[in-house]
Amino acid sequence: MPRTELLPAVAGLSLFDHHCHGVVPADLTREEFEGLLTEGDRPHPGGSLLDSQLGLALRRWCAPLLDLPRHAEAEEYLSRRAELGHAEVTGRMLRASRLGALAVDTGFTPLPLLSPAELGVAAGAPAYEIVRLEPVAEGIAAAGGTAAGFPDAVRAALAERSRHAVGAKSIAAYRVGLELAGRRPTDPEVVAAAGRWLRGLRPGAPVRLADEVLHRFLIYTALDLGLPVQIHSGLGDRDVHLHRCDPLLLTDLLRDTEAAGVPVLLLHNYPYHRHAGYLAQVFSHVYLDVSLALHNVGRRAGALLEEALELAPFGKLLYASDAFALPELYYLGAVLFRRALSDLLSEGLVDDAWSEHDAGRIATMIGGDNARRVYRLPHPDS
Amino acid sequence: MPRTELLPAVAGLSLFDHHCHGVVPADLTREEFEGLLTEGDRPHPGGSLLDSQLGLALRRWCAPLLDLPRHAEAEEYLSRRAELGHAEVTGRMLRASRLGALAVDTGFTPLPLLSPAELGVAAGAPAYEIVRLEPVAEGIAAAGGTAAGFPDAVRAALAERSRHAVGAKSIAAYRVGLELAGRRPTDPEVVAAAGRWLRGLRPGAPVRLADEVLHRFLIYTALDLGLPVQIHSGLGDRDVHLHRCDPLLLTDLLRDTEAAGVPVLLLHNYPYHRHAGYLAQVFSHVYLDVSLALHNVGRRAGALLEEALELAPFGKLLYASDAFALPELYYLGAVLFRRALSDLLSEGLVDDAWSEHDAGRIATMIGGDNARRVYRLPHPDS
Amino acid sequence: MPRTELLPAVAGLSLFDHHCHGVVPADLTREEFEGLLTEGDRPHPGGSLLDSQLGLALRRWCAPLLDLPRHAEAEEYLSRRAELGHAEVTGRMLRASRLGALAVDTGFTPLPLLSPAELGVAAGAPAYEIVRLEPVAEGIAAAGGTAAGFPDAVRAALAERSRHAVGAKSIAAYRVGLELAGRRPTDPEVVAAAGRWLRGLRPGAPVRLADEVLHRFLIYTALDLGLPVQIHSGLGDRDVHLHRCDPLLLTDLLRDTEAAGVPVLLLHNYPYHRHAGYLAQVFSHVYLDVSLALHNVGRRAGALLEEALELAPFGKLLYASDAFALPELYYLGAVLFRRALSDLLSEGLVDDAWSEHDAGRIATMIGGDNARRVYRLPHPDS
Repeated sequence: MPRTELLPAVAGLSLFDHHCHGVVPADLTREEFEGLLTEGDRPHPGGSLLDSQLGLALRRWCAPLLDLPRHAEAEEYLSRRAELGHAEVTGRMLRASRLGALAVDTGFTPLPLLSPAELGVAAGAPAYEIVRLEPVAEGIAAAGGTAAGFPDAVRAALAERSRHAVGAKSIAAYRVGLELAGRRPTDPEVVAAAGRWLRGLRPGAPVRLADEVLHRFLIYTALDLGLPVQIHSGLGDRDVHLHRCDPLLLTDLLRDTEAAGVPVLLLHNYPYHRHAGYLAQVFSHVYLDVSLALHNVGRRAGALLEEALELAPFGKLLYASDAFALPELYYLGAVLFRRALSDLLSEGLVDDAWSEHDAGRIATMIGGDNARRVYRLPHPDS
Repeated sequence: MPRTELLPAVAGLSLFDHHCHGVVPADLTREEFEGLLTEGDRPHPGGSLLDSQLGLALRRWCAPLLDLPRHAEAEEYLSRRAELGHAEVTGRMLRASRLGALAVDTGFTPLPLLSPAELGVAAGAPAYEIVRLEPVAEGIAAAGGTAAGFPDAVRAALAERSRHAVGAKSIAAYRVGLELAGRRPTDPEVVAAAGRWLRGLRPGAPVRLADEVLHRFLIYTALDLGLPVQIHSGLGDRDVHLHRCDPLLLTDLLRDTEAAGVPVLLLHNYPYHRHAGYLAQVFSHVYLDVSLALHNVGRRAGALLEEALELAPFGKLLYASDAFALPELYYLGAVLFRRALSDLLSEGLVDDAWSEHDAGRIATMIGGDNARRVYRLPHPDS
Repeated sequence: MPRTELLPAVAGLSLFDHHCHGVVPADLTREEFEGLLTEGDRPHPGGSLLDSQLGLALRRWCAPLLDLPRHAEAEEYLSRRAELGHAEVTGRMLRASRLGALAVDTGFTPLPLLSPAELGVAAGAPAYEIVRLEPVAEGIAAAGGTAAGFPDAVRAALAERSRHAVGAKSIAAYRVGLELAGRRPTDPEVVAAAGRWLRGLRPGAPVRLADEVLHRFLIYTALDLGLPVQIHSGLGDRDVHLHRCDPLLLTDLLRDTEAAGVPVLLLHNYPYHRHAGYLAQVFSHVYLDVSLALHNVGRRAGALLEEALELAPFGKLLYASDAFALPELYYLGAVLFRRALSDLLSEGLVDDAWSEHDAGRIATMIGGDNARRVYRLPHPDS
């Protein structure tokens, strides 16, 4: 069935993108562009990564924003992109995303990226900061912190670092997987773990945290500060062991942290998004999104959203793009999410599964109200 | 595509609900009602659990049975429910479910519930009993049974307890997960395990079984008695570690028990229902249902049924609601299942994937014939 | 929506079936036929395995090739099949599959099967050989090979055995699961593992390899020879522990083998086909198919293909039937795959998600160009 029009309740939404990164303020070669497009990092023999759901969605949706016909060829797209220049492309993509707000993870900068403030200007929307937890610990180690002083140093540094942030983010998934114990580590345990880690550091080598106790300590420290904690779950690049990133592995930790009432946000989740939906149903402080997968799967975005919302209450799902580096990914996330949400709600209307009033209410919750509640931010109209 | 009419072969089915619990014979506050609705057990901040697929399905389907318009607001629904009183609501919901028979798990009674006989009267259908296995062992322990006498005591108690039952049920999933060994435990092994368990019991504390050997012994004992054994798999409340409830973990046990030919029924299974379908294809004595998830996912029930029936032969899927406490859950299970089955069969007819004759035959099998064959019960018309 | 016509770009495809087995050159009883149809191996009580998606697809699609009406009853089908004789049935089914080429796994012969050459004649297409790895090692053991000479003997035997083959295949999944280390075993490690294995062999008993080091050694040896390696993943018969066949368990091995650039092909994958799609996105040398599940799930084939192609680039998916013994499975694989691919591409066209030109290009890649690139085979028209 051709899906031409968005449901008005969805078409009018300014989306709160609660998890994204900066944009590269530079022009890119085709190789650089393709390298930033997906989670792979090498050219594939005999075929372009643009020959994928993501690549076809890019040519379908982004080409018209560069004054090209829909489905313009990749070469044509990249050539026009170069002609317009990165600043113009970034502006067009971000404005077309129609964002109500952004929460920007500033902790992953393998190349220079726009700051949250600069992103906010480009998007015409307020931009908030999410502090990544691991660099806080790594900074203390790099500065010669001691094991004995580690617990207090982390608490002080995170309190300072997060003064203007709305949340924190853990990438334990990338470093040790998500099988984290369901118990706050004691200070002596943290000191012992820090001692092992610090002794293992080699001068001159990058300081990289990968210790179950310390990742867990960072999460508890953030929650103690009242910071909503985003946890990378599921899909990521080739550095993850995806089967160790099933959010169900967090069950014990979620059980232990529920009483405090500080939100925990499961990011990405694919292909375990049904698992995340279950956790969001049974734990009152757990939220989820389908970011990253959203733009990667192109026109299958609707299938993901349907699955994520089987068990998750509508008050628990947030919008996020997880866009990184390429402004196209902001726009693709937004456009694919609006279509997915519109399709989901429309099909329920056709079935008489819910009323127009409910559909509108759900759209508003998911489009931004849930995020504003989690991050305790005012509604733009209030 | 609007799905207005059920396929006649499905519309006419009296469903055999092969796994359900009793109904609370009491009026409920909104808090109590919401607490019994889903697998979560705390209020969610800033949103009601009624804002979910389940909540919307409840307002869509159950409101008209209380003389309200479809999609009546939750407050209105609960107020009308209170006005009618629990007995009237129970009668309306159960009669509207159009059940051909019920098999009631009587082993979970955190609050007073209708007995199978009372449920049967309310539903106008025969109600059979399923004996839960763990309370049999716990009763022996509570009564001061010894380790040495444990194997014989369990065998005798289960034989006695199941004299009028049609099957047994294991909740090993909740207690130790499903990674059960594929081997009948010897009596000395059972005695040793019982000894460890009994020695650990504290006077006055609840007697709660959680021992892989003993859960397994209970399952083998039931099968020896010729009792079809239901095994909780997948979805449950926040007490489960969902990733330890994947039915594939039962592979060894299923391999070891196949030759005896006594049915093993995998309950719920979501989000591992495709896994259960595989087991039902490759093991001749394995059956499955999609209960519990069925009403939780609301209008997505059809997607679950489609996935469960990818590999499972049509002779292996049973209907069950897993309704507990709220009579609405009986009705939602039945109405959502009929729609799901009708949609699945109708879409195949539109595609010319099967004939009308086959569609009718499949509906009859799944609607009740499979259950009657498993539990060795007569057809109502015979 | 009735799906009557295939997209022309798909209807015209000659499919390259890159993973299949031989056909039984004999007439079969109903019991034998049913036993070969699915992954189960015993009759199911009270129901036929023909009452399944697969059975209904067989009656829908294969009956007309035997001059019967669509949906002919099973008895009628089997009687007509016997009347025509196996050779005639094989010819009709294979020709109707319209294959461009076949790559035949010759390593599984529990009963006499047609050779690749004979299959090729029946199909009217070139047939290539895939060498199964485990029999190479088992042959050396059976011939009295020593542990000390094992590494060189395997290298020499595989080089010789694969002289006319286009690839190799590992069934580590069946024997030890897929949790293979991400490191080439050293010769001393191989010698030690071979020693343990050879010492454990009992005279007269079948020689059966099941050792993580040796399965891994076979895979590395094949890759060293430049042979694309097929790895059984996911769905198989009741001998597999399906949860140990998740292709994600191969992550370390894939990471370690990527630089060499020799293709690794993940076969079957169901129900982990989304996992395989992720691996095909992030590892440049990884490819996937949805064989075996494809015919087992009947009209749900489209759902599988959609899920597999969420993350996998279109240049990474190959067609395969995994047909074994019954010629019907070749035809069902081909007909269900053509419909699945046509539906996927058509729905994108209706949505304007891609252009007709792109749809045609993708069909050509998946239908055969990807396989020819992987196995370095010429295009039939070149």
